[in-house]
Amino acid sequence: MNVLVIGSGAVGSFYGSLLARQGADVSMMARSDYEHVKLHGIDIASDTKLGHYHFRPRTVVRNASELTEKPDYVLLCIKVVEHADRVGLLKDAVGPETSIVLISNGIDIEDEIAKAFPNNELISGLAFICVTRTAPGKIWHQAYGRLALGNYPQGVSEKARALCSMFERSGITCVASEDIVAARWQKCVWNAPFNPLSVLSGGLSTNDILSTQEPFVRAIMEEVCRIAEATGHPLPPDTVDKNIESTYKMPPYKTSMLVDFEAGRPMETEAILGNAVRVGRKAGVPIPHLESVYALMKLRELRRRAE
Amino acid sequence: MNVLVIGSGAVGSFYGSLLARQGADVSMMARSDYEHVKLHGIDIASDTKLGHYHFRPRTVVRNASELTEKPDYVLLCIKVVEHADRVGLLKDAVGPETSIVLISNGIDIEDEIAKAFPNNELISGLAFICVTRTAPGKIWHQAYGRLALGNYPQGVSEKARALCSMFERSGITCVASEDIVAARWQKCVWNAPFNPLSVLSGGLSTNDILSTQEPFVRAIMEEVCRIAEATGHPLPPDTVDKNIESTYKMPPYKTSMLVDFEAGRPMETEAILGNAVRVGRKAGVPIPHLESVYALMKLRELRRRAE
Repeated sequence: MNVLVIGSGAVGSFYGSLLARQGADVSMMARSDYEHVKLHGIDIASDTKLGHYHFRPRTVVRNASELTEKPDYVLLCIKVVEHADRVGLLKDAVGPETSIVLISNGIDIEDEIAKAFPNNELISGLAFICVTRTAPGKIWHQAYGRLALGNYPQGVSEKARALCSMFERSGITCVASEDIVAARWQKCVWNAPFNPLSVLSGGLSTNDILSTQEPFVRAIMEEVCRIAEATGHPLPPDTVDKNIESTYKMPPYKTSMLVDFEAGRPMETEAILGNAVRVGRKAGVPIPHLESVYALMKLRELRRRAE
Repeated sequence: MNVLVIGSGAVGSFYGSLLARQGADVSMMARSDYEHVKLHGIDIASDTKLGHYHFRPRTVVRNASELTEKPDYVLLCIKVVEHADRVGLLKDAVGPETSIVLISNGIDIEDEIAKAFPNNELISGLAFICVTRTAPGKIWHQAYGRLALGNYPQGVSEKARALCSMFERSGITCVASEDIVAARWQKCVWNAPFNPLSVLSGGLSTNDILSTQEPFVRAIMEEVCRIAEATGHPLPPDTVDKNIESTYKMPPYKTSMLVDFEAGRPMETEAILGNAVRVGRKAGVPIPHLESVYALMKLRELRRRAE
């Protein structure tokens, strides 16, 4: 199995290394970390049973045109933020038989790629993981690691199932999802309140947010469920309750959007909130809480550009 | 006319000085600025036709119990924020014939005072003004100055009209309002979006907020109008349009809530938003945008206490 991972951040490095440990032939495309990864490879320090290990990609390239053969799978592991040219990054990597695998947060992030590569299999994936790049080539895997993978817009192909099996053998949970769009909405139920509220509050943890404003959190979650239902992806009726319960049980958590905000990096505002709001509006679902939070995030981003 | 002004901030100093210039016998109750005001009085620097002038109160006290006679009017000019003990401040100031005049922002701020002083006339007032206390006893009046005064819960008494006339003669506009509660809702239409959005955005001006998120601003304004209507104080049908138009025409403005936030002072979150939300809920009016903004302000305040 020949794999190219685009993005040497935490997610790409971690999942790429798992496939390499199972014998896949894994190359990486890196930008800012190119020199380091080319020379030294990547150190993974996992606090789970995966332990500490070293991952040396078969090849490290700056651009996919440097590769001599087209991969069976290309894993695009970058955040969907403004100015991320996903089609441009994939262009030279994709051959006629290449399956494109997207591993990133957000709603409705597949359509652009499906339109640009109409003849390639498209696998959409979600990672439930705490993992951080602490320095070039240094990855700290704190907890979790589950993946959900499925073909876009639906179904699970043989190639998707084969990838899923290889991840399973590597020691994480990988769920093959027949309706990956529903899985995205399911994840959005949690992301839509906690990510923006952590930023707009000025840095509160999930626990502080939930323990003081549970009705507001629930109102946002319920709107996300209503959009999912209206667009043909109904979520289980206990979805909101389960998200609330499990968040109360989690240790106080700093969301990824807050981490990006504090580091001065672009945030997934459009992928998580903007796209959800647009789908909701198109479907005619009333989403006043979601729209309020989205509008406020746009104002916060506008202000940040001036700071 | 014997007047006691409670609060030597910008609003109390400015309006107290106007009455003194018309011949009223104006005393002041001050806390942090007591020494300075007692020794030096107050300098008012107005950018309007009022010009620069000095105001020396008849008496300056720390506590109303020091006064030898009860005033005809006591002007309570303090912000309605947590830990502001308005009843305690008024207690020693109020005699049987004293009219209590509240000059502060917010919704439903009269009830507590009406219940504590059921036998006193209660005049409720709103100031439309840009005025700042730049140092103890130094007041900078930048623009505007209009007052709206009326008895609570409604009507205009002779004493209210007399006070209004004296303010009019001093060179500002003072409107006697038969329905001061409606006037409070009218002012809330502007305050409810711009004050919290300026804080939650991290410091945007009214102009930046409006020019990028006009539909969101309108949605909040419309909910305020709906509460006013549902509680018997319908506002003119063009209220939202007029507020939007006039804000576009204003120079970019930094809201009072943002000024308080940046100075680390308590904000009028409950007076402006919390009370409006509670009245709206009680009346059964759907107010999801207002509730979202209120919830976010409570999160922002929670975070600030930890900062």
